[in-house]
Amino acid sequence: MHRGTSRFFPSLPAWPLIDAIVDRALEEDLAGGDLTTDACVDPSIVATGLFVARSELVASGLMVVERVFRRLEGAELTFEHHVPDGVVAAKGATLLAVRGPARTLLAGERVALNIVQRMSGVATLTHRYVAALPPGATTRIADTRKTTPGMRVLERYAVRCGGGHNHRDMLGSAILIKDNHLVAAGGVAPAIARVRAHAPHTSRIECEVDTIEQLEAALEAGADAVLLDNMDDETIGRAVELVRTRRGPNVIIEASGGITLPRIAVLARFGVDVISVGALTHSAPAADVALDLGLAGAWA
Amino acid sequence: MHRGTSRFFPSLPAWPLIDAIVDRALEEDLAGGDLTTDACVDPSIVATGLFVARSELVASGLMVVERVFRRLEGAELTFEHHVPDGVVAAKGATLLAVRGPARTLLAGERVALNIVQRMSGVATLTHRYVAALPPGATTRIADTRKTTPGMRVLERYAVRCGGGHNHRDMLGSAILIKDNHLVAAGGVAPAIARVRAHAPHTSRIECEVDTIEQLEAALEAGADAVLLDNMDDETIGRAVELVRTRRGPNVIIEASGGITLPRIAVLARFGVDVISVGALTHSAPAADVALDLGLAGAWA
Amino acid sequence: MHRGTSRFFPSLPAWPLIDAIVDRALEEDLAGGDLTTDACVDPSIVATGLFVARSELVASGLMVVERVFRRLEGAELTFEHHVPDGVVAAKGATLLAVRGPARTLLAGERVALNIVQRMSGVATLTHRYVAALPPGATTRIADTRKTTPGMRVLERYAVRCGGGHNHRDMLGSAILIKDNHLVAAGGVAPAIARVRAHAPHTSRIECEVDTIEQLEAALEAGADAVLLDNMDDETIGRAVELVRTRRGPNVIIEASGGITLPRIAVLARFGVDVISVGALTHSAPAADVALDLGLAGAWA
Amino acid sequence: MHRGTSRFFPSLPAWPLIDAIVDRALEEDLAGGDLTTDACVDPSIVATGLFVARSELVASGLMVVERVFRRLEGAELTFEHHVPDGVVAAKGATLLAVRGPARTLLAGERVALNIVQRMSGVATLTHRYVAALPPGATTRIADTRKTTPGMRVLERYAVRCGGGHNHRDMLGSAILIKDNHLVAAGGVAPAIARVRAHAPHTSRIECEVDTIEQLEAALEAGADAVLLDNMDDETIGRAVELVRTRRGPNVIIEASGGITLPRIAVLARFGVDVISVGALTHSAPAADVALDLGLAGAWA
Amino acid sequence: MHRGTSRFFPSLPAWPLIDAIVDRALEEDLAGGDLTTDACVDPSIVATGLFVARSELVASGLMVVERVFRRLEGAELTFEHHVPDGVVAAKGATLLAVRGPARTLLAGERVALNIVQRMSGVATLTHRYVAALPPGATTRIADTRKTTPGMRVLERYAVRCGGGHNHRDMLGSAILIKDNHLVAAGGVAPAIARVRAHAPHTSRIECEVDTIEQLEAALEAGADAVLLDNMDDETIGRAVELVRTRRGPNVIIEASGGITLPRIAVLARFGVDVISVGALTHSAPAADVALDLGLAGAWA
Amino acid sequence: MHRGTSRFFPSLPAWPLIDAIVDRALEEDLAGGDLTTDACVDPSIVATGLFVARSELVASGLMVVERVFRRLEGAELTFEHHVPDGVVAAKGATLLAVRGPARTLLAGERVALNIVQRMSGVATLTHRYVAALPPGATTRIADTRKTTPGMRVLERYAVRCGGGHNHRDMLGSAILIKDNHLVAAGGVAPAIARVRAHAPHTSRIECEVDTIEQLEAALEAGADAVLLDNMDDETIGRAVELVRTRRGPNVIIEASGGITLPRIAVLARFGVDVISVGALTHSAPAADVALDLGLAGAWA
Repeated sequence: MHRGTSRFFPSLPAWPLIDAIVDRALEEDLAGGDLTTDACVDPSIVATGLFVARSELVASGLMVVERVFRRLEGAELTFEHHVPDGVVAAKGATLLAVRGPARTLLAGERVALNIVQRMSGVATLTHRYVAALPPGATTRIADTRKTTPGMRVLERYAVRCGGGHNHRDMLGSAILIKDNHLVAAGGVAPAIARVRAHAPHTSRIECEVDTIEQLEAALEAGADAVLLDNMDDETIGRAVELVRTRRGPNVIIEASGGITLPRIAVLARFGVDVISVGALTHSAPAADVALDLGLAGAWA
Repeated sequence: MHRGTSRFFPSLPAWPLIDAIVDRALEEDLAGGDLTTDACVDPSIVATGLFVARSELVASGLMVVERVFRRLEGAELTFEHHVPDGVVAAKGATLLAVRGPARTLLAGERVALNIVQRMSGVATLTHRYVAALPPGATTRIADTRKTTPGMRVLERYAVRCGGGHNHRDMLGSAILIKDNHLVAAGGVAPAIARVRAHAPHTSRIECEVDTIEQLEAALEAGADAVLLDNMDDETIGRAVELVRTRRGPNVIIEASGGITLPRIAVLARFGVDVISVGALTHSAPAADVALDLGLAGAWA
Repeated sequence: MHRGTSRFFPSLPAWPLIDAIVDRALEEDLAGGDLTTDACVDPSIVATGLFVARSELVASGLMVVERVFRRLEGAELTFEHHVPDGVVAAKGATLLAVRGPARTLLAGERVALNIVQRMSGVATLTHRYVAALPPGATTRIADTRKTTPGMRVLERYAVRCGGGHNHRDMLGSAILIKDNHLVAAGGVAPAIARVRAHAPHTSRIECEVDTIEQLEAALEAGADAVLLDNMDDETIGRAVELVRTRRGPNVIIEASGGITLPRIAVLARFGVDVISVGALTHSAPAADVALDLGLAGAWA
Repeated sequence: MHRGTSRFFPSLPAWPLIDAIVDRALEEDLAGGDLTTDACVDPSIVATGLFVARSELVASGLMVVERVFRRLEGAELTFEHHVPDGVVAAKGATLLAVRGPARTLLAGERVALNIVQRMSGVATLTHRYVAALPPGATTRIADTRKTTPGMRVLERYAVRCGGGHNHRDMLGSAILIKDNHLVAAGGVAPAIARVRAHAPHTSRIECEVDTIEQLEAALEAGADAVLLDNMDDETIGRAVELVRTRRGPNVIIEASGGITLPRIAVLARFGVDVISVGALTHSAPAADVALDLGLAGAWA
Repeated sequence: MHRGTSRFFPSLPAWPLIDAIVDRALEEDLAGGDLTTDACVDPSIVATGLFVARSELVASGLMVVERVFRRLEGAELTFEHHVPDGVVAAKGATLLAVRGPARTLLAGERVALNIVQRMSGVATLTHRYVAALPPGATTRIADTRKTTPGMRVLERYAVRCGGGHNHRDMLGSAILIKDNHLVAAGGVAPAIARVRAHAPHTSRIECEVDTIEQLEAALEAGADAVLLDNMDDETIGRAVELVRTRRGPNVIIEASGGITLPRIAVLARFGVDVISVGALTHSAPAADVALDLGLAGAWA
Repeated sequence: MHRGTSRFFPSLPAWPLIDAIVDRALEEDLAGGDLTTDACVDPSIVATGLFVARSELVASGLMVVERVFRRLEGAELTFEHHVPDGVVAAKGATLLAVRGPARTLLAGERVALNIVQRMSGVATLTHRYVAALPPGATTRIADTRKTTPGMRVLERYAVRCGGGHNHRDMLGSAILIKDNHLVAAGGVAPAIARVRAHAPHTSRIECEVDTIEQLEAALEAGADAVLLDNMDDETIGRAVELVRTRRGPNVIIEASGGITLPRIAVLARFGVDVISVGALTHSAPAADVALDLGLAGAWA
């Protein structure tokens, strides 16, 4: 397990949520059938398919791949999972083997790959950020709501597979006061007072701050967490010191905006609690996964 | 217009297709409401929002952004489109201005940005590949079916905005004979014979080839198009020469697999007709678009 | 406004969420058309409908009622809203007037009433609990996840209309450690340690406790909030005292289970922060709203 | 069986209709996953859950409860049904036992309870009305279209579980002429003439009457059934006598509006055929059902 | 109006039901865009389209045609309805004129035609059966549940446009006892007793009979309606006489099975009340409607 | 096999596409349950059902029939397929046997029949056209996009079962230049130039022509295929000769418009490659299939 000694295994999203995504993807690709396969491949031919990592990656989405084929076909399919989600797979490693009708494997190939490549891409990029943390650091790498429309549940799961943490799921999950909220409410203190009065008690009150002055106001007003937005390293260093001096570990410090890999270790050493990185989901390149198919003659 | 003198304007996908994507995205982000905005922002406050390019990009998806807000609110919203889809916007350029209730603008902000950043990201990356073509080249840059599940219609449109061309939309749109089809059918000649016998006459018959020998077989069998898969430049050069010698311009030559930007000009000069690039849709980083919001006091 | 000087106006759920509910309800009632109306009422007849409170209630859902009719008919409808959501309406008060084709009003009547009666029922029951708080109390009345399947967004909005607060929206919004989590994790301290390590930083850590001993363990382990579950008044009194002695106002105290109206004032005087009441949504009787229709001759 | 010697077993709604409700409910509660369970409960832990009646109730919806968990998990789950739908369960009785992964049972708990509590609540309230009928009475207790949006198929089934009867399912199932139809058509006689001319022959013609005069007109015009709306007991007595004198048992007499439990026996003794009660579905309090979970160590 | 002096105008199905059909149809045809139109037609070109009857037909579905285009485009479209639904249009008659962007008209053309051709086809065939009734006959021509999957609401509406009547909408709308129900229940008398005891009082009790003996049993048992199934003319004549002798006009007589146009007048003269014809919906040929498009230069 | 020695077996559409159609159909018919069956048939009764061809037909959709019942019920059902899709079944032949709970078989009967009657109707009509081809002819009979809204995937499959070929699936699958495209683009040559420049290279370029002059222009401009629209036999003969003289077999010739059965052999002998017939899907009468049910006493 790439996340060391942790015993945490993220759960897959509930199946109805996954099925909705899978069915849409299958409809996108198969509404008109598979012309080439229907013409070239007799229905009696069976095949074995190996999903193979063509470069090192963190696996994510293999159970969803299985689901893709199960939506296409029933009991004739068998699956062998070689690498569980969340584990680093070396270049060349087989992730999953599937055996079944060749027509089914060919029809579902692209949808399956599109899903596992995207999910493993997100997991792998997340893992790179996590791996950039200095040894022993308790800082967490977190995602954002900058996800692909319709894919949030899978991308958030992939972030967890990569060793990252999830930020709030939606605008209704937690409070995050941003600049425009401050303007509308008339400043940090009234904004925090309003969310304290009106928002669910289940959420911490996090306030985005752009300057040390705003940070001081947020601490003053009793924020539970502060988001240091788009600050340079030096300012972040000063901000962390200020928070710890005034409130000790009781205020969570998040940094975001313009985060690059080399900055991760710096911010972690300052003692930032959470580094949130939009790129984990909005700009992760696809992981390189291939499906190697072997036709195996007529079904026995 | 980055596509020079061309008079081609791609159409948006049909609204019911767009609405399905937009509504899913809104549900993902707003099923629990917007806690912070509801607490901080009085419903009477209006705002003006500017969608601004934070780095040079090719615009795509601004009409979809408008749709996001229209699904949230009715007649109170006004929009001013500054940059049409498909046009290069300089860093700092305003793409779209929207004016309406501040609550609506804040509630829809993230969904709108997620869409326009992804679509403009695809368009911008496509444009980079198109711009790498030598002057006067007739080679086209094409996408693949390696799209994000559920987002195919928007990503294909974004490719067109970037000056690229679409490949087949789904497995039911056109014939592309791949290695496993060849194995199943018993070789190039029988595979082409089978698709000619069984598949719709509306599709060209394209055959993927890995070697010069396969290419010769495909030409022999009467393929309308050949896909040179994962060949190095030198082999592609020989392949193009072979095709042109034997069949002149009547066979379409596509190259795919391991395409990098520097290879584009090389392949174009060989006379390749189509270069298809999976990265256009599976690995495009998000374009950097921001929504600058100005609160404007109570609605007049 | 029944919520006194508060300037808080809850937002309606996003329209796509409302439309999904409205369309399902219309399909349930109108898949076979409206036999009686089609036979008896000529299409040229117009009508005026008054939604009237037949007993005192807190209004909720009138904008959804308008939406019901708008999904059935276009521009011919006019609406006049007399009582905004969240306001107490006296017995006999007109809430909303609608004018349009009689066929449309008759076809949509039952669906509209079912929605407004349920939503106003929830708001009215909530208001009764809120009104039971002693003057000046800062205790909040909160809902639970015990909502009607498919109606959560509307029922949570109705609770806000009644002056109540929302608890967490879904299992993914916030942490609430219950007895089975304690058993699985091996006790209060390891459970809190695990959620602190793995769950989003945006959520407060709330722990359900059944006994004073569990309460002490939760405080020890650093819970942000405690849920006193099914305790009698006397135990709750002792629990509040214990929390305030050890942690002052920094730990949120919620009471739940077996809450009846007469207990509200008692618990509020103890200083409980949140009283959550499942009955607000799972057992609210329908508010008594009628649609008085007057046929108005042929459409002018 | 609470319905005595009857051999009638209502069928569940078709699975696609149930699945749509279950999936919506799961999405409402699990779109963001289950934060607490994921953190606290290792995936290898299994549990046994007992759905227990905390007060006497008529069971309804236990097969739907099973479905909730089956949508979350596959073959690892086992179910033991102790009390079939439609049967009275004593306080403390176990209705259903389920064994499976603890994560699955915890994730589905609230959705399952919300469904069975609502359905059993409707069945139990219905049963109270049915039980109020005098011995030997042939009067039936019927529901109305005053159901919760999106839940009609389950609530109508629950009414049948409680020994009640269903009224028409939707506006397209049967004819019921109400006051506004009378106004629009120009009176009782023309209204009945119009529905006889235009509506499907499969429906009885039922006419709502507010007065004895209207009743006489309806009988005159050949109504198959009359709905005595909001009449007091004395008027209903006179109305029944009038109907039986003129038309014997050939006209069905329904009473509705302001029906309370004590009136049931009175109306039944008059010989009313059908008493329809909106409260069965619009105001039934949730039945008190709990899920007692026992964690059972690692899955064997 | 082909239905003579009747003042009955059927209502369209509720818009959410229509939109679901229209959107599915648009997605079927436009998921991949309109390749030819995008390439050939500049977006600035406007067009006028005339929906023209190429042979005599009864119009049905023109409002749905309008809806098809409105789902594709907003305010730029104008419509002029020349022939209302339910009216006979002569060969060559213009039914509807539409003006708007040429791209929109071309993209929606096929979906619009598929709908109006099917609906008008059903209406026209229905009209032929209705026209075959002898002058003055009160017999009604009715449809069945033999409709195209997903199209029932539109096909039932089309039957009404053609002057026909609807039978029960679904299995939950009304009772129709068929041969297998008789076998399961143990004969005509127990079957009728069971439906009288258990089914909603809103439905007439109709019993299918194959023989005169069964008919006598059904009358004996008090059926409200009888369905003479697959009987020859002579037997139907005897059956009608039997019913009228025993029960006068109080039992509705329906004939079905093997109904051909020439038999309509015969059965009507016997005094059959309802003739139900599956072919109205399962075998109606498409009406011949064309869309004549005129391109009108750039939009003014 | 009616298609002689061909080894081509069309694949069913992907299950998610079929399930969407089946579920809609079940909801249409069963939203209100099955009143008659519930009252008359005890749940313990089992039945055997035989789907029987009442006249000669080409089978299509039997696997979809199985799916209908599987969506209603689980493991208790057994199926025996006697006639595979695509095969001619004689009058009286049993196509499929099903055994299971009588309630399930009765509830699903109509939906199952509606589907198999329509699909087999399309297959049978297609087969009649295919059978009209002269021996040895290579001409193919093709469908069009004139399909029933929502049923395209099943109807196209049915055409393949009947020995026909599919034309393009949707507007985004292939290029077909029609008269209005010619007008908008300024003639045949510019239209073909535009699609060659802008449309996917995967599609052949087909151009509709009404006259010999247009045909010459299309050949000149390099069309890959020509659609001879609404020409009489004599003109088609001349057109084929012209094409073969100028371009040999390299241009595909399609004929469409006003195709009747007697013309098939004539056109085939001319050497037309494709004859497309809208009637295959828009006007196919339902095949006559019945479900013979035998009740079999209590489930063993």
